[in-house]
Amino acid sequence: MTELLITDFAERARRHHPHREIVAYARGEEVLRYDYARYCERVARLAGALQRLGVRPGDRVGSLCWNHHRHLELYAAVPLAGAVLHTLNLRLSAEEIAYIAGHADDRLIVADTDLMPLLDGVDPELGVLDSGEAYEALVEQGPPLTTPPERSEHDLAVLCYTSGTTGRPKGVGYPHRGLYLHTFAACMVDGHAVSGRDTVLHVVPLFHANAWGVPFAATMVGAKQVLPGPHPTVPEIARIVERERVTYLGMVPTVATDLLEHVRTHGTDFSSVRALVLGGSTPSLELIRGWEERGVPVFQGWGMTEISPMATFTRETDPTATDPAAGDSPGAAEERYRRTRGQGRLLPGLQWRIVDDDGAELPRDGVASGELLIRGPWVASSYYLGEAPDRFVDGWLRTGDVATIDPAGRLRIVDRAKDLIKSGGEWISSMALEEALLADPDVAEAAVVAVPHQRWQERPLAVVVLRQGSRAGGEQLLSRLGGRVPRWWLPTDVVTVDALPRTSVGKTDKRRLRTQYAGTTGKE
Amino acid sequence: MTELLITDFAERARRHHPHREIVAYARGEEVLRYDYARYCERVARLAGALQRLGVRPGDRVGSLCWNHHRHLELYAAVPLAGAVLHTLNLRLSAEEIAYIAGHADDRLIVADTDLMPLLDGVDPELGVLDSGEAYEALVEQGPPLTTPPERSEHDLAVLCYTSGTTGRPKGVGYPHRGLYLHTFAACMVDGHAVSGRDTVLHVVPLFHANAWGVPFAATMVGAKQVLPGPHPTVPEIARIVERERVTYLGMVPTVATDLLEHVRTHGTDFSSVRALVLGGSTPSLELIRGWEERGVPVFQGWGMTEISPMATFTRETDPTATDPAAGDSPGAAEERYRRTRGQGRLLPGLQWRIVDDDGAELPRDGVASGELLIRGPWVASSYYLGEAPDRFVDGWLRTGDVATIDPAGRLRIVDRAKDLIKSGGEWISSMALEEALLADPDVAEAAVVAVPHQRWQERPLAVVVLRQGSRAGGEQLLSRLGGRVPRWWLPTDVVTVDALPRTSVGKTDKRRLRTQYAGTTGKE
Repeated sequence: MTELLITDFAERARRHHPHREIVAYARGEEVLRYDYARYCERVARLAGALQRLGVRPGDRVGSLCWNHHRHLELYAAVPLAGAVLHTLNLRLSAEEIAYIAGHADDRLIVADTDLMPLLDGVDPELGVLDSGEAYEALVEQGPPLTTPPERSEHDLAVLCYTSGTTGRPKGVGYPHRGLYLHTFAACMVDGHAVSGRDTVLHVVPLFHANAWGVPFAATMVGAKQVLPGPHPTVPEIARIVERERVTYLGMVPTVATDLLEHVRTHGTDFSSVRALVLGGSTPSLELIRGWEERGVPVFQGWGMTEISPMATFTRETDPTATDPAAGDSPGAAEERYRRTRGQGRLLPGLQWRIVDDDGAELPRDGVASGELLIRGPWVASSYYLGEAPDRFVDGWLRTGDVATIDPAGRLRIVDRAKDLIKSGGEWISSMALEEALLADPDVAEAAVVAVPHQRWQERPLAVVVLRQGSRAGGEQLLSRLGGRVPRWWLPTDVVTVDALPRTSVGKTDKRRLRTQYAGTTGKE
Repeated sequence: MTELLITDFAERARRHHPHREIVAYARGEEVLRYDYARYCERVARLAGALQRLGVRPGDRVGSLCWNHHRHLELYAAVPLAGAVLHTLNLRLSAEEIAYIAGHADDRLIVADTDLMPLLDGVDPELGVLDSGEAYEALVEQGPPLTTPPERSEHDLAVLCYTSGTTGRPKGVGYPHRGLYLHTFAACMVDGHAVSGRDTVLHVVPLFHANAWGVPFAATMVGAKQVLPGPHPTVPEIARIVERERVTYLGMVPTVATDLLEHVRTHGTDFSSVRALVLGGSTPSLELIRGWEERGVPVFQGWGMTEISPMATFTRETDPTATDPAAGDSPGAAEERYRRTRGQGRLLPGLQWRIVDDDGAELPRDGVASGELLIRGPWVASSYYLGEAPDRFVDGWLRTGDVATIDPAGRLRIVDRAKDLIKSGGEWISSMALEEALLADPDVAEAAVVAVPHQRWQERPLAVVVLRQGSRAGGEQLLSRLGGRVPRWWLPTDVVTVDALPRTSVGKTDKRRLRTQYAGTTGKE
C-alpha cells in the first residue's frame, strides 16, 4: 500500500518542476528568488541537520516565524525528518506561547530574531534556533537527508493550536493522510482550484492553520510561491501582486478592505488575480462589490483550524441553477456578491449536518438553524492531547457555529454558538445585528455581545467604530436601527469606541468585550 | 478514521445536487431523463434487492452491458451492497467471457438481452439477470438499503480484466481507497478537471477500466451525465453532443477520426466541448489539428487498466515554459498539437521512472528510453489472484511500455516493449515506423510487427490500409519511406490490406498480425 505522505509533494516538485520559482520579499523588496530544485536541496539539508541536532521521529519542532522562505522550508523539512512542525502564533503573548510550547512539549524551536522575546518563558530541550545565521549555518553543514525515516500516513506532520477565544488554546494535530487529501481537494476545479499555472502570494500567516493548506497545494502542482516577509503592509502586498503577477491570494476581510482602498488610490494593477479568497470572518457586501467592480473575482472560503482548515468555497458549481444570480445583469451581479457573503458549498470528501439542541438533524431549507457538525478525512477527531472531548461526537466535529444550509447546499453561518444572545427564551444573532448596524452609513465596524440582564437573562449590547468624520451618537444610531430589526432585538446600548479589540488572528475579541461590558445594566 | 469509500459519492450527489440530470439515449433518441435524487433512490433499492437475492459483501457481481443508465446504477449499487462490480467486456468471445467470469467466480451477472448469447458458457451461482424487465422488477421491489454493510477502504469495489494481448486476461481489483483518490485526481485543475459545471458523455465503455473513472468523478461533483446507449454510432454521438451541450467526452482516436469527418460534413455544433480527451493509442497530428482548428480543445490522457486507469494528461501546467509551444502564432499551435501527441505530464499522487534492462534508472532527458515503471495510491500492486507477479517489482508496476521522459516531465511512449523489433542487436520502434508510414498521403492506417529473420533475428514488416481511391503498391510505399527513416529500419515488406485486425478494446491486434505473417521471409 502507498502511504499518503505530504513529503511526496516536495519530491514531486524536485522531479517535475525544478525550475518554477519561489520568491521571498522583505519590506516590499525582493530578497531571494530561487526555485524548487534549490528549495528541495535546502530542505533535504535542513532535515539532515535536524536529525543530527537530535530531532527524532515524532518530536515537535516549533516555528515562530513570519512568512519567509525559511518558514516554507520548515514546512517540508520537519515532516521529512519524521518530526512534527508546530507552528506558533506570533500574535500571542509570551505567556500564551509558553503555555502552548510547554503543552506540545516542543523539543526545538526555530524563531525569527525580532520574535525571540516572545520565547522568554520557553526552554526547549534542544534549544531555540535563530532563523537567520544559525539556520543558514545548519543548512550549509546539514548532510542531505536521502532516506527519510519510515513513516505511516497516520503520523502527525503538523501541529497547530486554536486561537482559543474560549478557555485555553487547544492543539490540533494534522496527520499526513488528512493533509494529503486536503491538498488534493485544494486543487479541485470546484474548490480553490490551485494549479501549476498559479502564482500564489502567502498573505495568510504560515503559522495559521497550515496557511489554509496553500503551501502544500502549491508545492504539489508546481505553482510559483511568493512570500511577503516580516510585518507585511498593505502597500507591500499591493506592490508584490503587481510585480509578480499574483493569481491567487487569501486574506481576512479587514486586510482586504485596506488593500482595496490602497489599490483604488494608487491604481495598482490587479488584473493578474484570478481569485481573491476571503476567510476568517464574513466579508461585507461593499467589500465584495468593490473588488468585483475592479475585475477581481472574490470568493469566500470557510473553515476551521480543526478542519485543516478548508471546508467550503463559494464557487457556483451548478450551471443549471436558474436563479437570480445567473446572467450578466447588474441585478445578477449583486445577487452573486450577496451569495459570496454566504459560506458556499461543502468541498467533496466532507459531510455536514445541522442539528438542534438534542442532536436531531434539521432540514436543509435555508431557514432552520442549528449547530453545524462536520466530518471527513481531514477533520480532526480529537484534540492533540485529548482536550475538550465534548467537541467530538460519534466521529463528528461540533464546530460551535450556528448555521443554515439551503436546498442547493449553500451554508450560511448565523453566529458562533457562544456569541448568540439568549433573550427571554429566544435567540438573537449577534452577526445579524452587526450586519444591520453596518448598513448605517455612519458605522465603520460593529460588534454585538450579550450582557447579563435580570429580566431577560441576556440582552445585546453594540460596540461600534464610527466612520471618519461622523459624529453620530449612540442614541441616534439606535433609533435608526429601530427600522431595520425586530423591536425586541434592539440593543440596550450602542457604545462608540475608537477601535475594536482583536484576537491574535485578527478577529473581534468578543470575550474581552463581554468582560468589559458585563456590568452594563442597559437602558431598558 | 474516515474510511475512503466511493459509495460516499452517490450519497453526496443525493444531498448536494439532487436535481442535476442524468440522461439516457438509445439509437440517438432520448429514452430517460432523470436526476441524482431518483438515481440514488434506485441505487439504494437495487442494493437492497441484491442483498435479498443473496449477494454478500465481497461477492463479485458481473455486468455485461452497454453504456446505459442501469449500468451506471450498478456502478453505485454493487459497491453499496458491499460487493464488487465486475465489468465484463462485451467485445470478447463467449469463450473468453466464460474464462474471465469463472476466474473471478462471479456469483451473479446482469446482462443486456442482446448480449445474453455471450454468456453461454457461464453459470453463476445466483444466475444471470436481464438488465431489462427483470432488473426493473428488482428495483421496484427492492427494499432501499439504508445501512450499508461495514466496509474497509481496502475492500474491492470494482474488478476489471485486462484485454490480454499477451497470454490470458488478468484481473485488476480496485479497492475503494484507490478509486477515491483517483476520483479526487480526476477533478484537479491540472488533470481532466471534471467539475460540477460539466456535462459528460460516456463514449468510453463503462466496461473499460472504470470508463476512465469519469462516472465516479461526475457523480462526486454533480456533473450532468449522458449515456449514449447500445451500439453507439458516430452520428448518434454527434447528435447527443449538440443536443445536450456536452462539455467533456473521451474516446479512442479511431472513433474521434470518424467523428471529425461527420462533424465536418454535417456542421455539427461542438462549441460546448471544453475537452475532447483521446486515449487508448497515440492520435495522429492530423486528427488533433482537425479538431483544434474547429475550436475543440484536444487532450491526450494516457493510462492503463492497472492504473485505474488515469496516469498522465497533456495539459500544459507551467506558464513560464518559454518554448515554441507558447504564444498564438501558427507555429506555436502546431507545436502544441505535436505535444498533444505525446502522453503529457504525470498526475499528482503518482511516481514514475524509466529503467534499463537491469532495472537501473535512466535520465529524464527526452532521449534515453526504457521501460516505464509507475507506482502510487491508485496503481495496482498485484493482479486479482496473484497472476503474473513479475509485473510488480518493489511496489512498482512494470507498464510494459518503453518511453522517454523529457526534462520538463513530459512522457513519450516509444513502443510497447513486446512490439519493439530487435534487429541485429538494435531496437526498432514499431510506432516510429508506423508514424513515418502515416506521413505518406496514400496511407490511412499502418501497423508494423516483427517477423523472424535468420540473419537479423527480427525484421519489421508493415501492414497498411490505403486511403480511399489510392492504388499505391507496397514497393512504391517502401521506396517513398526510404527518405524518411534510417535505411536499416526499412521493412522487409509493405503489405496492403482492407482493414487491420482489432482487439476487444479497439487497438490494432498485433499478436494476430505477428502470427499471420510469421512465415514471411521478406525481400531482403
